[in-house]
Amino acid sequence: MTRIDGRTADQLRPISIDRGWSKHAEGSVLISFGDTRVLCTASVTEGVPRWRKGSGEGWVTAEYAMLPRSTNTRGDRESVRGRIGGRTHEISRLIGRSLRAVVDYKALGENTVVLDCDVLQADGGTRTAAITGAYVALSDAVAWAREKKIVKSKAQPLNGTVAAVSVGIVDGVPLLDLCYEEDVRAETDMNVVCTGDGNFVEVQGTAEGAPFARAELDGLLDLSLAGCEQLAGFQWESVGD
Amino acid sequence: MTRIDGRTADQLRPISIDRGWSKHAEGSVLISFGDTRVLCTASVTEGVPRWRKGSGEGWVTAEYAMLPRSTNTRGDRESVRGRIGGRTHEISRLIGRSLRAVVDYKALGENTVVLDCDVLQADGGTRTAAITGAYVALSDAVAWAREKKIVKSKAQPLNGTVAAVSVGIVDGVPLLDLCYEEDVRAETDMNVVCTGDGNFVEVQGTAEGAPFARAELDGLLDLSLAGCEQLAGFQWESVGD
Amino acid sequence: MTRIDGRTADQLRPISIDRGWSKHAEGSVLISFGDTRVLCTASVTEGVPRWRKGSGEGWVTAEYAMLPRSTNTRGDRESVRGRIGGRTHEISRLIGRSLRAVVDYKALGENTVVLDCDVLQADGGTRTAAITGAYVALSDAVAWAREKKIVKSKAQPLNGTVAAVSVGIVDGVPLLDLCYEEDVRAETDMNVVCTGDGNFVEVQGTAEGAPFARAELDGLLDLSLAGCEQLAGFQWESVGD
Amino acid sequence: MTRIDGRTADQLRPISIDRGWSKHAEGSVLISFGDTRVLCTASVTEGVPRWRKGSGEGWVTAEYAMLPRSTNTRGDRESVRGRIGGRTHEISRLIGRSLRAVVDYKALGENTVVLDCDVLQADGGTRTAAITGAYVALSDAVAWAREKKIVKSKAQPLNGTVAAVSVGIVDGVPLLDLCYEEDVRAETDMNVVCTGDGNFVEVQGTAEGAPFARAELDGLLDLSLAGCEQLAGFQWESVGD
Amino acid sequence: MTRIDGRTADQLRPISIDRGWSKHAEGSVLISFGDTRVLCTASVTEGVPRWRKGSGEGWVTAEYAMLPRSTNTRGDRESVRGRIGGRTHEISRLIGRSLRAVVDYKALGENTVVLDCDVLQADGGTRTAAITGAYVALSDAVAWAREKKIVKSKAQPLNGTVAAVSVGIVDGVPLLDLCYEEDVRAETDMNVVCTGDGNFVEVQGTAEGAPFARAELDGLLDLSLAGCEQLAGFQWESVGD
Amino acid sequence: MTRIDGRTADQLRPISIDRGWSKHAEGSVLISFGDTRVLCTASVTEGVPRWRKGSGEGWVTAEYAMLPRSTNTRGDRESVRGRIGGRTHEISRLIGRSLRAVVDYKALGENTVVLDCDVLQADGGTRTAAITGAYVALSDAVAWAREKKIVKSKAQPLNGTVAAVSVGIVDGVPLLDLCYEEDVRAETDMNVVCTGDGNFVEVQGTAEGAPFARAELDGLLDLSLAGCEQLAGFQWESVGD
Repeated sequence: MTRIDGRTADQLRPISIDRGWSKHAEGSVLISFGDTRVLCTASVTEGVPRWRKGSGEGWVTAEYAMLPRSTNTRGDRESVRGRIGGRTHEISRLIGRSLRAVVDYKALGENTVVLDCDVLQADGGTRTAAITGAYVALSDAVAWAREKKIVKSKAQPLNGTVAAVSVGIVDGVPLLDLCYEEDVRAETDMNVVCTGDGNFVEVQGTAEGAPFARAELDGLLDLSLAGCEQLAGFQWESVGD
Repeated sequence: MTRIDGRTADQLRPISIDRGWSKHAEGSVLISFGDTRVLCTASVTEGVPRWRKGSGEGWVTAEYAMLPRSTNTRGDRESVRGRIGGRTHEISRLIGRSLRAVVDYKALGENTVVLDCDVLQADGGTRTAAITGAYVALSDAVAWAREKKIVKSKAQPLNGTVAAVSVGIVDGVPLLDLCYEEDVRAETDMNVVCTGDGNFVEVQGTAEGAPFARAELDGLLDLSLAGCEQLAGFQWESVGD
Repeated sequence: MTRIDGRTADQLRPISIDRGWSKHAEGSVLISFGDTRVLCTASVTEGVPRWRKGSGEGWVTAEYAMLPRSTNTRGDRESVRGRIGGRTHEISRLIGRSLRAVVDYKALGENTVVLDCDVLQADGGTRTAAITGAYVALSDAVAWAREKKIVKSKAQPLNGTVAAVSVGIVDGVPLLDLCYEEDVRAETDMNVVCTGDGNFVEVQGTAEGAPFARAELDGLLDLSLAGCEQLAGFQWESVGD
Repeated sequence: MTRIDGRTADQLRPISIDRGWSKHAEGSVLISFGDTRVLCTASVTEGVPRWRKGSGEGWVTAEYAMLPRSTNTRGDRESVRGRIGGRTHEISRLIGRSLRAVVDYKALGENTVVLDCDVLQADGGTRTAAITGAYVALSDAVAWAREKKIVKSKAQPLNGTVAAVSVGIVDGVPLLDLCYEEDVRAETDMNVVCTGDGNFVEVQGTAEGAPFARAELDGLLDLSLAGCEQLAGFQWESVGD
Repeated sequence: MTRIDGRTADQLRPISIDRGWSKHAEGSVLISFGDTRVLCTASVTEGVPRWRKGSGEGWVTAEYAMLPRSTNTRGDRESVRGRIGGRTHEISRLIGRSLRAVVDYKALGENTVVLDCDVLQADGGTRTAAITGAYVALSDAVAWAREKKIVKSKAQPLNGTVAAVSVGIVDGVPLLDLCYEEDVRAETDMNVVCTGDGNFVEVQGTAEGAPFARAELDGLLDLSLAGCEQLAGFQWESVGD
Repeated sequence: MTRIDGRTADQLRPISIDRGWSKHAEGSVLISFGDTRVLCTASVTEGVPRWRKGSGEGWVTAEYAMLPRSTNTRGDRESVRGRIGGRTHEISRLIGRSLRAVVDYKALGENTVVLDCDVLQADGGTRTAAITGAYVALSDAVAWAREKKIVKSKAQPLNGTVAAVSVGIVDGVPLLDLCYEEDVRAETDMNVVCTGDGNFVEVQGTAEGAPFARAELDGLLDLSLAGCEQLAGFQWESVGD
C-alpha cells in the first residue's frame, strides 16, 4: 500500500525546524510537518502568576490558535466571535501540560514562559507539530534566560525533551503522522507525546468510527514511539552543536 | 496495600444508578460513583442542527457542568464569569464523542438528543460517572422516542453500550476508579471509555508527575478494561428486565 | 372548587426540607415544594468583598440558577450563552436581599456567606422554595462558623427567620403556593417574603392579565402571611431539637 | 415634619412632561420628576419578534439605561463592561411589563414598539419617571402609527393609561415620590404602578431596614394610589385635547 | 448653489453651547450643531490609572455613545449586544486624543478627567460636536478642580482650546459642517480637529466615492480651518468671563 | 541627518512581496516593510452578507490582528480577553475601506472577499504594509475567481491599485515609512493611502506631541505621495507580466 503522498506507513512527512524566526521572542521556531506550518514563540517574563508567588517555582503555559485562513475554508476569528472554542482550549491545555512534563520549576525560578503556537497553514497534525516546535522554542528561551541571569539556578530547568506525533488507522492500516486527507478518513485517531528517552507524557486515542481493539491500540503505540524517537532526533539536530 | 477507603486496587467504589430522577426529561439518571454524584438528563427534540438538515441522520451532543459548591471550595459560576472554562469544554466534548460512538444516526432519524451532566457533588471521576450515567439516560430517552414514534426506524439507534472509568498510578501502584484524594496524588492519570463488548472508544492518559513507561500504560489499560466491564454490568442491571 | 392537585385554596404543597445534602458545603438543603426541588448550599469564606474590608461587618449574597432540563423543555445554559438572563439576575438579587433582612452584619464579622440555589426540578415557586431553603442552609452554615470560631461574636448573626411563598389569582380565586400549571393561568401573581414573626421583607405583585384591585391585593396578602407562617413552622421543625 | 425639599409627605415633586423632544422617534418625551430627568422614546417597527410571527398580535418592550454621569459619581458604561447589570435588567423588565398591561395586542396588529428610557439625570425615582413618561411616548407613537395606517385596526391599541410612583417610610413616616436623599434613608422602599382607573399593575415593596408590618404596607399603598392618580392627571394634560 | 438647509458652502449650522446642563458632573455641556445634540459631561476623579501612578501626571480620556433612537431608525444598544462596535471605539479614541492635545499632564497632577459624550439626537457631525462640546466641559471641570484645590499646580492644565468640524465634497463642491443628508451623499468626508490658534490636532479624510486629488484636499483643509476658527469663537463666548 | 537604520528621509525600508505564500487561500502574500512582516490572505466565498443579497453587488471586508509575540513584549490575545480592542477595530476598518475604494461591486458580482492581515512581526507601519500586501492578495484572488468563472462579469472588478505608507515628523524632520523606534519618537504621525494614479483614499494625521501647522502637513503629504508611488511600483513588479 502506498499513502496519498507516497510515504510508507511508518514514515514521517518532511520535517523542518527553523529557529530564530522572530526578532522579538526569546525563543522562536517555524516548524513544518509537511504542509503544516506552525509558528512557535516562547516569551519569558520575570515573575509568576499570583497563585504561585513566593513559591520559588516558575511556570510554563501555552496558547494555540489558527489563523482564519490556515485551513481550506476560512474560519471565523475567535476574537471576533468573542470566545475561544472548545478545540482551541483543549489543544492549548495539551501543549502546556506536555511541556511542563519536562520542566524543573525550582530550577526555572520564579519566571514564566508563555508558548504561543500559531498555525499559519494546516494540513493535519497541527497540535503535534506545535508541541514539537514549542519544545525547541522553550529550550532556546531557557538558554537565553540563563545567559541573561534571569534564570539563576545552576540546575538545567529542562530535564528532558518532548515531541509529539499523530497516528491513526486508515482503511485498517496503522499510519504515522497523518496528513489532513488521511486524518479525515481515519477510523481511529491518536496523538502521542513522548519524552526523548521513550516514555509517555500524553496518550489520547479516539475512535472516530468503530471502537478499536486492544491489539490495534498496541500497534498504534508502537508506531508512535518510533515516530517520536525520530522527531527527537530532528529536535536534537536543530539545536545543534 | 489498602486504599484510603479500604478498597483493593482493582475495586470500584459503590455504584448506584437511579433512573427516572427527573419528571421532565425523556431520560434521567442520578448516578453515584462513591461520593461523586452526577445528574444526567437526556432531552429529545425533533429536528437537527442546521448543518445536518436533510441528511436523514440524527445528532447527539452533551454538556457537562459542576454546581459551584459541588467541590470542596466554592468555584465561580461559568455563567457569571461569562465564559466556559477549558476543562468544561474538554469534558463536554469527551462525553459527546463517547456516546456518539454507539449511536446509529440513520436509525435515530432527524432527531437530536442533548445530554446534560451536572455534577451535584464531586469526589473524583466526575467525567467517567457522567459518561456511564449519560449512557443509561440516553438509552431511556431513545426507548421513549421509539415508543412515541418520534424515532420511526425499526433499527435500534444504539448499537452498543458505553461506560467509562478512571485509572491511575499512585505511589507506583495502578489503581481503579480514583477518588479525589487519590487523584490528587496520582503520578499518572487515565480515563478510559469502553463499549460493553470490551473495545476502546477513548483513551486519555496524562503524566501528572514523571512520564510513564509502556509497561505501566499496559497495566492501566488492563485495569480499565476490567473496570468498564463491571460498569457495563451495573448499567445492564439498572435498565433491567 | 378543587385545585389541579386536589389542594384547597389556602393549602401548601407537600414540603420537605432535607438538611446536610452535600458533604462539602457548610450548610446545604434539598428543599421540595411539591415537584419543585431546589438544592441550596451555603458557603462560608473568611473575609469580605473589597468594598467592605475593614468595616468589621460581614456579607451575604446569593446566586440562583436552573439546570437546563429542570423545566418541561430544555433551556440553554447561561454559561453557554455567555450571559445571565434578566430573570436569573432578578431572582438572585431577591434571594440575597431577603436573607440579608435577618442578618446582623456586625455579629457575623468580616465573613461572607454565598448561597447557591440551583433548581434541579421546576414546577412553579422556585424562587420561594429557594428563599425558604436557603434560610435553613444559611442557619446551618452560621452555626458551623460559630462552632469553628470563624464567627467570634457572642451575638447571634441571624436575628430572625425568613420564608417565602407565592400567591395568585386563578379564575378569580386567590390561591396559595401555585404549581406551574396554576402559575401559567394566574391573572395576578405575587411573591411574598416574610419573617417568622409575620412582617414583610418583600412584596412583589404583578398583573399578568387585568390589573388588580386593592381588595384583591388585600386578599392575597392575607393568604401569603398564613402560608409563610406555616413554612416558618417547617423550617423550625427541620432545624429541630 | 417638613421634607428635605419642603414638600408635604403626600406631595409629588414638580412634574414636567415635554413631548416631541426627539425629531426621529415616533413618540418621545423628556420627563422630569424634580431633578430626575428621563428621555423616553418610542420606536415603531412593522413586524414582530420571530416567536410571535403569524399571531396577528403586536409586541411592546422596553430598555432602561443610565448615562454614566447621570448620578453623583460616574458609573462604568455597561457597554464597556460588556454586560448589563442585574438592576438594569430588572428595571427594563418592569417597564415593559407595566406598559404591556394596557396594550391590546390584537388591536396593535403585528407591529412592535420599543421604549427606550435613558436617564439623563438621576435623583431618585428613575424607574417610576420612566414608566410614566414611556406611557406618553407610547401613546404618541401609537397615534402616529394609526395615522400612518401601520396600525390598521379600528380598536384603540391602548386600553388604559399607566403611571408609577415610589413611596417609602423615612424615619417612620410614609412619604410619596422619594428623592435620592430620602431614598437612601428609607427603611422601606416601594414602587407602585397603577392604571388611570386606580388598579394595580405592579407592587414591589422591599424592607431596606427592618421588615415592615401590614399596617405600614397599607399606608404606603394608600399614598401610592393617590400619587398615581395625580400623575395620570399630568399625563392627561400633556396629551391634551 | 444652495444647500439643503439654505446655508452657504462655508457656513456652519446654528451652534448652541448650553453649559452646566447636569447637576452632578463637574463640567457639563449640551451642545447643538443644528439638529445634532450631544450631552458632554466631564467627571473629575482624584488619582490616575495604575500604569500612570507615581508619575505626578494626570490623565484625560473619553467615551462616546449614541442613544438607540438618536438616529432615524433605532439601533441596538451596545450594552445589550455585549460589545462596543468599531465605530464607537474609533470615535471615543479620537475624542480622547483630541482633548489630550491641549492638556498639560504635569499641571493637572495625578487626577483623571473622563469625558462622556452621549449623542441624544444625531444629524451628522456627532463626533465634531462632541469634541467641541467636550472641550468646554473639560475646561469647566478643570476650573472646578482648581477652585477645590484638587488641581494644586499654579500652571494652567489646559494650554489651548480645541474644536472640530466636518467638511466634505458633495456634488463636486466642498462644504462645511455636513448635516446627515449631505454626509450620506458626500464623495469625500473629512473630520478636522484644530486648536484655537489654527494648528491641526487630527486630520481624517476618507474617499467615500472616488479617490480625491491633492487640490481637493487642499480646498477642504482651507474650509475646515475657517470653520474651526468660528467654533473657537463660540467656545470663547460660552465660557465668557 | 541620517536615520536610525541609515536611510534618507524619503527612503522606504526594503520591501518584499512574497505571493502565493499559503496553499489554501485564493490569494496570499507575505509582505515585509523592513522587519515588519504581515501575512495577507484573500478568501473568496460565493454569496454576500444578508443586507446585500439580491443587489447583484459584491462585498470586500478585512480583519487585522497581531500575533501575541509579534511585538517586543507579549500582548494578550484578543480571543482570550474576549473582545477586540479599539485599535484592532480601527485598523480593520481602515484596511477594508481602503481596498473597497478600488472595487467595482457590480463587476465583482454577488461574491465576498475577506482579507485577513495577520502581523507576524511588527516594527512600525503594520497597517500600511497590510494595505499594500492585501491589495496584491485581493488582486490574485479576483484573478482566480474570474478564471474559475465565479466572477462572471467581463469588467475588471478592480479599477485601480492601492498602497499605503506612514510618514511623520521626527525631531522636526519629515520622514517616510517610520520604523517602530522612529514612530515612538514622532511628533506627528500620519498614514496615507493612495491609488496607483496618485489620488488619496485615506489621510489620517495625528499630533502625538504639539499640534502641527499647515506647512508641515503639506510636507508630509508630498512625502507620502512619493512613497505610495514607489510602493505601487513594487506591487506592479510582484504581480509581474
